Amino acid sequence: MKTGFVQFRPILGDVNANVEAIDRLVRSVEQVDLLVLPELCTTGYNFDSKEQAWELSEPIHDGTFVKHLVSLCREKKMHIVAGINERDGDKLYNSAVLVGPTGVVGKYRKLHLFMNEKDIFQPGDLGLPVFDLGWARIGLLICFDWIFPEVWRILALEGADIICHPSNLVIPGLCQRAVPINALINRMYVVTANRIGAEGDLTFTGLSTIADPNGEVIAQASPEDEEVAVVDIDVALARDKMITPRNHLINDRRPQEYRRLMEP
Amino acid sequence: MKTGFVQFRPILGDVNANVEAIDRLVRSVEQVDLLVLPELCTTGYNFDSKEQAWELSEPIHDGTFVKHLVSLCREKKMHIVAGINERDGDKLYNSAVLVGPTGVVGKYRKLHLFMNEKDIFQPGDLGLPVFDLGWARIGLLICFDWIFPEVWRILALEGADIICHPSNLVIPGLCQRAVPINALINRMYVVTANRIGAEGDLTFTGLSTIADPNGEVIAQASPEDEEVAVVDIDVALARDKMITPRNHLINDRRPQEYRRLMEP
Repeated sequence: MKTGFVQFRPILGDVNANVEAIDRLVRSVEQVDLLVLPELCTTGYNFDSKEQAWELSEPIHDGTFVKHLVSLCREKKMHIVAGINERDGDKLYNSAVLVGPTGVVGKYRKLHLFMNEKDIFQPGDLGLPVFDLGWARIGLLICFDWIFPEVWRILALEGADIICHPSNLVIPGLCQRAVPINALINRMYVVTANRIGAEGDLTFTGLSTIADPNGEVIAQASPEDEEVAVVDIDVALARDKMITPRNHLINDRRPQEYRRLMEP
Repeated sequence: MKTGFVQFRPILGDVNANVEAIDRLVRSVEQVDLLVLPELCTTGYNFDSKEQAWELSEPIHDGTFVKHLVSLCREKKMHIVAGINERDGDKLYNSAVLVGPTGVVGKYRKLHLFMNEKDIFQPGDLGLPVFDLGWARIGLLICFDWIFPEVWRILALEGADIICHPSNLVIPGLCQRAVPINALINRMYVVTANRIGAEGDLTFTGLSTIADPNGEVIAQASPEDEEVAVVDIDVALARDKMITPRNHLINDRRPQEYRRLMEP
């Protein structure tokens, strides 16, 4: 199966231009089963104010962008994961949505908010769901979630084969180094779709990455250029959790020793 | 404060030669506060049988090797972490002992056994203790434990500043890539003391590593040579868990979302 990322330069506040760029880049791919777009890919990231973020937000259910993604997925017979500024009632969430030819498959709301996101978004309240596409089980993380090892592990325990990780990474190189390690120690594929460009004092670091369950980087974009990468992946590799003939990554855990992880 | 590792080539079954090598290498260091030795550093690793492992084991309390370490620590005004084939009653444990000038400070028993260790050792039953030396809090892990992200995190939550990680690593490079990431995402120092040489079909990979709380490798040995490395470390760096002005690595966790980690 073919999986990839779209790395591009969203323009803060210009939803139309961003959706056009997404459309052009997704259509540039000949054949793909699953594409991952960056975090907040239609709105940009570094909002001047909560009001600006609010104006740019939209609901997932019946939202214009999500409906557009569904029609794109129908046309291309594919699935897309996209980061979205989600409006729900009077609240905003930094969310990722998984969309396919027949509609929204599922969504995730960022559990761990970075810096000034804390002034704009509610912390995620949907846990760490895994969605089964038949050919693969998909887990979703967003950007700064990467620094919390718990989330990768929970998705592995829930059976995720591929972690789709829309991002707007600003700390140079750290996440990109950690992604293959998280892929390795959980034996999963990880697709980190990062953005490029700058907004105010934030520069986004590109280097979108696909890592395989052996911890190898099988695709990586440049730090500064627009890029779509698609690779063949073998989901069976992610389902084989034997790291040696006698060591199973999941069954060798000692959960009764891990109580401390649950305490505040 | 000065912390380091001793990388050397233990000889399977020759405790006297191994203790002599340890003695020579520890004495070669001018001044150090904490030195980490490899896993099973007095006995070698790849036992022919459980009987051989039993013959080579010794207790920690009042054991010959541990008493020797205490006198070495007293003489050099230092602490040592050493991997030891621990006999306790009729059981063997793959253990690490933390020793200082006044005696044994604490011990840890490997929670996650690798390959044929399962035929020889009991799985660890002492949890993941942290020992306070006054100038630093010490957590202990052994070799294959590294692949379980839970253990690094638990030690960070328990306040460890330095993880001492006696190892006999055989899978080329994987752990050595993961160590700086675990140091980074938990903001701790990690000292991985690996061995070199071969025993039967196992070749040990050297590359003993010290990583700092920024995820930088501040010392690394060669893959094949005997080596002692000592670096200055700043424990305050490990106690500062702010990764941005508004993000604290520990306080930003969402433990109520991590229940899945405790389930079998």
